[in-house]
Amino acid sequence: MKKIILLIFITASACSFAQTDSIFIRKIYDEALERGESHENLRSLCKDVGARITGSAEAEMAIKWGEKLLNSYGFDKVYLQEIQVPHWERGTKEAAWIINEKGETLKLDILALGGSVSTNGLISGEVIGVEDIEALQKLTEADVKDKIVFLSQAFDKKNIETSRSYGACYPIRGEGTNEAGKLNAKAVVIRSLATPEDHFPHTGTMHYEEGVNKIPGAAMSTKNATLLSEWLKEGTVTLKMEMDCKQYEDVTSYNVIAEINGKDDKIITWGGHLDSWDVGEGAHDDGAGIAHSIEAMRILKKLNYKPNHKLRCVLFMNEENGNMGGKSYAQIASEKKEEHICAIESDRGGFLPIGFDVSGSDEQVALVNESKKLLSDFELYRFRKGFGGVDINPLKEYYPDMIQLGMAINSQAYFNYHHTHNDVFENVNKRELELGSAAMAAMIYLMDKNLK
Amino acid sequence: MKKIILLIFITASACSFAQTDSIFIRKIYDEALERGESHENLRSLCKDVGARITGSAEAEMAIKWGEKLLNSYGFDKVYLQEIQVPHWERGTKEAAWIINEKGETLKLDILALGGSVSTNGLISGEVIGVEDIEALQKLTEADVKDKIVFLSQAFDKKNIETSRSYGACYPIRGEGTNEAGKLNAKAVVIRSLATPEDHFPHTGTMHYEEGVNKIPGAAMSTKNATLLSEWLKEGTVTLKMEMDCKQYEDVTSYNVIAEINGKDDKIITWGGHLDSWDVGEGAHDDGAGIAHSIEAMRILKKLNYKPNHKLRCVLFMNEENGNMGGKSYAQIASEKKEEHICAIESDRGGFLPIGFDVSGSDEQVALVNESKKLLSDFELYRFRKGFGGVDINPLKEYYPDMIQLGMAINSQAYFNYHHTHNDVFENVNKRELELGSAAMAAMIYLMDKNLK
Repeated sequence: MKKIILLIFITASACSFAQTDSIFIRKIYDEALERGESHENLRSLCKDVGARITGSAEAEMAIKWGEKLLNSYGFDKVYLQEIQVPHWERGTKEAAWIINEKGETLKLDILALGGSVSTNGLISGEVIGVEDIEALQKLTEADVKDKIVFLSQAFDKKNIETSRSYGACYPIRGEGTNEAGKLNAKAVVIRSLATPEDHFPHTGTMHYEEGVNKIPGAAMSTKNATLLSEWLKEGTVTLKMEMDCKQYEDVTSYNVIAEINGKDDKIITWGGHLDSWDVGEGAHDDGAGIAHSIEAMRILKKLNYKPNHKLRCVLFMNEENGNMGGKSYAQIASEKKEEHICAIESDRGGFLPIGFDVSGSDEQVALVNESKKLLSDFELYRFRKGFGGVDINPLKEYYPDMIQLGMAINSQAYFNYHHTHNDVFENVNKRELELGSAAMAAMIYLMDKNLK
Repeated sequence: MKKIILLIFITASACSFAQTDSIFIRKIYDEALERGESHENLRSLCKDVGARITGSAEAEMAIKWGEKLLNSYGFDKVYLQEIQVPHWERGTKEAAWIINEKGETLKLDILALGGSVSTNGLISGEVIGVEDIEALQKLTEADVKDKIVFLSQAFDKKNIETSRSYGACYPIRGEGTNEAGKLNAKAVVIRSLATPEDHFPHTGTMHYEEGVNKIPGAAMSTKNATLLSEWLKEGTVTLKMEMDCKQYEDVTSYNVIAEINGKDDKIITWGGHLDSWDVGEGAHDDGAGIAHSIEAMRILKKLNYKPNHKLRCVLFMNEENGNMGGKSYAQIASEKKEEHICAIESDRGGFLPIGFDVSGSDEQVALVNESKKLLSDFELYRFRKGFGGVDINPLKEYYPDMIQLGMAINSQAYFNYHHTHNDVFENVNKRELELGSAAMAAMIYLMDKNLK
């Protein structure tokens, strides 16, 4: 692959250029705010399709939904990209109770972790509480065998960005069952990866290492977890649980792709993920990213923008439990010898956009930082080095010199909703969603104008 | 009054100074986020006191609530400042209907505007629709007499800040009854000053000019207003309404004030307003500002901060319908020959803080802008010239050289709740409220350190 050459903003006619940009970006925002379709599209995805875990009937319906909607906008090309994806189902039984020495019993708010095995009927075990993975790894098989491990790590409230707290707790969900399985525990329950103290359990992905004893894993609400921690200080606690979730054979699924042709075939791609967890409606995660991505392309077409490069919007499948959409997309792009110069992702909710995080060289960060002058009029202020996104990240392996951007979004409330029954359309603010769509369109436009 | 001399950040030891500041501000945020009391204080104000319009029993209870809470924190001085305030009551009857030529009837979602006179029983009139005050002013008495004027001006969605749209529509609420009264209209109804299309009417203040015919005024929900505009295109519409609201004699009330002594007697003051409208719970408007203000002082005391200047937190009464708290405070300050050097206000809701607007000289704006280096770590980015706030604004008359700051807050959802039954505690995010408290404490600290 040819090394991509980045040119900084055209300096010869900087002033008039910036003015043109400013006028065009203002038009993008006017279209998004006055005649925007992102909110209605999100409503339709949430209410007409619903929660859409990979491999489900709803995921298939979401693919049809996306293809039909993209076709309705008359882009140059709309097509499905075939991929293989995992298929896990929650089943119909999901319940747990804790019982203390006094015989007090509490039914827990739980959700199986995505990918968990079934309990094969009602199981029961003494709870052994540890805070985090490091503490669990210090235990021996004698400590843990046949017990139910409770990982109680809570969000660090001091982090300004809640995603940092999420990242710090991620191992208890992703690795808890695996580490406890090595020590022949009976099951794992975790404190939900969540900001508030409430009664919503948060599901999410976990994985089993090849050859390790597969044990069930579930998340309980933060309120339950706080109580269980208190009970454990007072004496022995028994936990009973039943779940009949199951992993099935992989199935065929699709990324949904739309394109607007450019003056050359270099590609600027962007997207969000079309799949969600199987609870709630996947409104913030990541219906919002889907709505942003489709709306950005609709606006650019509506404004009759003629891009320099090929613009490609991708509705990725299977971000939540396998990332086969993102991985396959990158591999296929490489096999086809496509030239990817930029990728942008929205997967942090439908809240207020605040800027863009840039995964790239210092020069690329500086390039994006230039846009601050234009975008601060639209209350986008934060342009700094950071992570692009899970779906676009696999492209880096094949296109190490490309620029990747993750739309930065107010994170304060995200982990109130993330992966819960509460992630529904009603919790997305219309204007904040529209501003996200406009921010994405503006950044696509600026990258298209300024990347060679 | 002596001219206040502003010194820019101490440059001799700029580096170590900034580091000390950075450490202290981090401590402020840790206290707010880990051991914050603002959320619980707001809950108590909303639930234990409730909506608290000036002159009501609830307003009296709010004063006691504020005095008790401030006393519990052991500040150097807590006291009440006596003021005279208006007293208006909504009454018990509030209903309106529209009837079109086909006889179709719709009951409207309405709220009397604050300060409106009663209808004195059920009134009825033909609706004359005009968009805004300018359009109304072009009409003659022959056009309007004995009719009910409907002002339909909607928010301009293109504005990025919703407060701009509010400002543009403000005259239909503030001046509608007055202008229509001059033309002997029977009453005025307006489209609520609101962002979304929904069924919540938004009340708010209005005024009658001396000598003008006083006619009743009410706001209907945006959904109702859109429908009424459509009906008016099709033919004649009759509106019937009844309201028994009433203005009473002025009463005695209080601003609630707390102080921490400084090394000198120059005063840095800050606050929000303790009164609210009489619907909902005044959570965002302005329970949040009260919670921010009290918490900022609590944190500075908790961290054992010894200020250079006298720090004064003011819970202003009567911002909503008269601003007698702010006006009286400024007048009393001047009479006592107090030296006010800085005032900060929070009255834009409990959403994500994004920076500070500065009402002051270019040098003062530059001083505040310096803090961006420290505060961008806490996702505060916007420091620019702007309005401080309604409560602190009267101080400018007596202290023209003082610096005033208004905390800038994400405005996207504010006018979904503002002055409605929907402005309740549950719609305030805990972390966003805490970040607002910390931002306020940080700015008080920086001003105290850097103003001479």
